[in-house]
Amino acid sequence: MQERFLCPQQQALPGILGGLGPLAHIEFEQRLLQQSFRRGASCDQEHPAWLLLSATPTPDRTQSLLGQGADCTPALVRSARLLETMGAGFLVITCNTAHAFHAAVQSQVSIPWLHMMDATAAYIAQNFSSIHQVGILATDGTVRSQLYTRSLLHHCLSPVLPALGSPLQQQVMNSIYHPDWGIKATGTWVSDIALEELNAAVDGLVEQGAELIIAGCTEISVGLARCRDLSVTWIDPLDVMAELTLDLAYGVRPVQSTLAA
Amino acid sequence: MQERFLCPQQQALPGILGGLGPLAHIEFEQRLLQQSFRRGASCDQEHPAWLLLSATPTPDRTQSLLGQGADCTPALVRSARLLETMGAGFLVITCNTAHAFHAAVQSQVSIPWLHMMDATAAYIAQNFSSIHQVGILATDGTVRSQLYTRSLLHHCLSPVLPALGSPLQQQVMNSIYHPDWGIKATGTWVSDIALEELNAAVDGLVEQGAELIIAGCTEISVGLARCRDLSVTWIDPLDVMAELTLDLAYGVRPVQSTLAA
Repeated sequence: MQERFLCPQQQALPGILGGLGPLAHIEFEQRLLQQSFRRGASCDQEHPAWLLLSATPTPDRTQSLLGQGADCTPALVRSARLLETMGAGFLVITCNTAHAFHAAVQSQVSIPWLHMMDATAAYIAQNFSSIHQVGILATDGTVRSQLYTRSLLHHCLSPVLPALGSPLQQQVMNSIYHPDWGIKATGTWVSDIALEELNAAVDGLVEQGAELIIAGCTEISVGLARCRDLSVTWIDPLDVMAELTLDLAYGVRPVQSTLAA
Repeated sequence: MQERFLCPQQQALPGILGGLGPLAHIEFEQRLLQQSFRRGASCDQEHPAWLLLSATPTPDRTQSLLGQGADCTPALVRSARLLETMGAGFLVITCNTAHAFHAAVQSQVSIPWLHMMDATAAYIAQNFSSIHQVGILATDGTVRSQLYTRSLLHHCLSPVLPALGSPLQQQVMNSIYHPDWGIKATGTWVSDIALEELNAAVDGLVEQGAELIIAGCTEISVGLARCRDLSVTWIDPLDVMAELTLDLAYGVRPVQSTLAA
């Protein structure tokens, strides 16, 4: 069925499970479009088609992981299956913390869910061969689940993370979740306080030896993109996923190759 | 089925038929989110869920309307039906020119497709009671199909349009379609030349008596949002549609009320 919705050169329809939060999936769509323009698209019909569900009712992933809220697995499975039924050939979920539920969800869905941490660690290993210490800015849930830690170690890279409960990690959490000026609260703009907190957290990780920073939460991607004069290079998993999404959509890499990851 | 994808207060799932072009639907999602924040949403779960198909393979609407390309009606119907099947309660199509096919598509789809021109004309009539002459910046296809003209006249407003083939209308078309610097070609940014052409076109309509301008093409919405010091107030149908979408999603207005329009 999905063939009827594909562009002429397209091989697979990306299914974006968004709304986690909505600002993050909009940012991802923008990256997808930017990369598509860079690859030469110059009219609507030369951009890939995609499907998107903004699944905002999904329980908060961090709370779910910390046992402070409803389990988000059933909601993720329902949403993934809807995208699959609509014809998606693979899934992208623009929420880092959601990847803690990757195994549980993937076992109940037939199409592959691209693993953001594996893709990002592989990208760093391939493109920054002289770097060993990689700093991670992420939510408590992502940190606790060791999502980036495991993927980095798998690629022989050393993760540098703030300790859970440390002032540094609290700065990261506040920049995302603070009810007045956190990025989830302010939405389509980012407050100066949130930017200052992120900047300070980056400096803290560099002091601990980080040679490169991963924006390990989509709200942090949105924030760091607006920070000036960062003291270190940072990698945006949204960009890594946008490149991978286009590669799979156009058959540069086969979708099945991602299932082994 | 769609109830499982709705937020607690939500009554209907918006179905966004995007990709016409993709930049326009991303801009619409941002407006939707901005309005949702303004209405008090402060976490993911307080924004409405929505479905989106970026249907980029749809034949170009302007060419279709001018008989210079494939008819886009079958593609619009297929996409609309996919969104309907997946649980959308109503359709939003973020492309002005596509509305020339509204009657043909609506007769083959059960859920209502919100009519952007009717909604915009109604908004102007309600909120700018002292204004009579309304300027329209739109593609040749939209101008020829008299989409805004008919909706404005229905609300006792006088449309002010450049003549088809005039230098003024050519400036509008170039700002959208020029292969090097048109908004569809440059994509996620807008070139200075496109902005100058749009500014000049606005001035031309004001000279012809326009007291207010409608951005009658989603690329023009994107462009005018980046123009400084415009000589007149402009109305963005994307904002009008975002408000209407939230009203319907949350049951402030019943979805059925839009079918009569």
